[in-house]
Amino acid sequence: MAEYIESLQRLAEQFGRLEGIGKKSAMRMAFSVLDMSAETAQELASAIIEAKERIHLCPICQNITDRDTCLVCADEGRDKSVICVVADPKAVISMEKVREYKGVYHVLGGVISPMNGVTPDKLRIKELLSRLNDGEVREVIVATNPTVEGEATAMYLSRILKPLGVTVSRLAYGISVGADIEYADAVTLNRALEGRREI
Amino acid sequence: MAEYIESLQRLAEQFGRLEGIGKKSAMRMAFSVLDMSAETAQELASAIIEAKERIHLCPICQNITDRDTCLVCADEGRDKSVICVVADPKAVISMEKVREYKGVYHVLGGVISPMNGVTPDKLRIKELLSRLNDGEVREVIVATNPTVEGEATAMYLSRILKPLGVTVSRLAYGISVGADIEYADAVTLNRALEGRREI
Repeated sequence: MAEYIESLQRLAEQFGRLEGIGKKSAMRMAFSVLDMSAETAQELASAIIEAKERIHLCPICQNITDRDTCLVCADEGRDKSVICVVADPKAVISMEKVREYKGVYHVLGGVISPMNGVTPDKLRIKELLSRLNDGEVREVIVATNPTVEGEATAMYLSRILKPLGVTVSRLAYGISVGADIEYADAVTLNRALEGRREI
Repeated sequence: MAEYIESLQRLAEQFGRLEGIGKKSAMRMAFSVLDMSAETAQELASAIIEAKERIHLCPICQNITDRDTCLVCADEGRDKSVICVVADPKAVISMEKVREYKGVYHVLGGVISPMNGVTPDKLRIKELLSRLNDGEVREVIVATNPTVEGEATAMYLSRILKPLGVTVSRLAYGISVGADIEYADAVTLNRALEGRREI
């Protein structure tokens, strides 16, 4: 039946192209557009076009922004001598939630993954290197995910950055706060042991 | 951080207005718009506007359609003497999936629910009554949900339709096909007993 209402079907298909949206959710979303006022639907459509048009990469840190440079790079209070390297803009959002980190970021746009055709030249490493040219940066914290690809990317960066005289560090591994040791996997527990601290 | 990228935040808020979309999903959807090509994003935005503009109610059965009359009402092969009354267009989709029902529909646009301010005059009952005027209709099947509101609506319709000389029926209650009797609730099981058939 829904297939016969072409414009509804087309809308559901379009919603289905969004990440994490299955067929049923897409159809429910399409129906809820019909329940909206014409004005609200127009606002939704405009927000899509606007976000797509306005958001671009910050020329300094390669994070997404809708201004000339992103707010972190534009902030005079941030410590420009520490760069936290992340895979994507979502990681920046997570880091910023901590409200403890006062340095700046560099967004790679992915991690090295030869299986998926992502070689180092596909990442924004060149842009990172050019930020190290003026000698102001003293530490690069690599905050890629603790996965095989994330690790490989961290290793790769460490190898090319260390000769430039900057400290390269990696986020600590260990058990999550509030987690149950009983359910921690062996590799994580091993890393937690290795990274133990005197108290 | 995301809060600072205004157009991204605004898009996520707009997605959050859709049914069943929480804050996290909305943000993930907003990010996936950024990953789309400008063309795909434009298609999504147009599909929203188009669906909203084109879809209206079928003048006969009050179901949603993007044509003059909906495909069921326009279909010469459907039995116009049987009307299945449903609460909303989604119920029509479910019924049509069965591929057994050959009658037509009438969409009420809700169920009677005084608590939520839905009185009978807010439903499209007047339109249903006018369809019974020419005396062609012999049966009205009330297929509202087996909830308090659905039941009340069925009772209400039955009371006003029966005097007009049409048969008013209700979908059978009982255990779901494939369900485990162990887990069926007492009320359902009781209805299943009441509706038992000789085999």
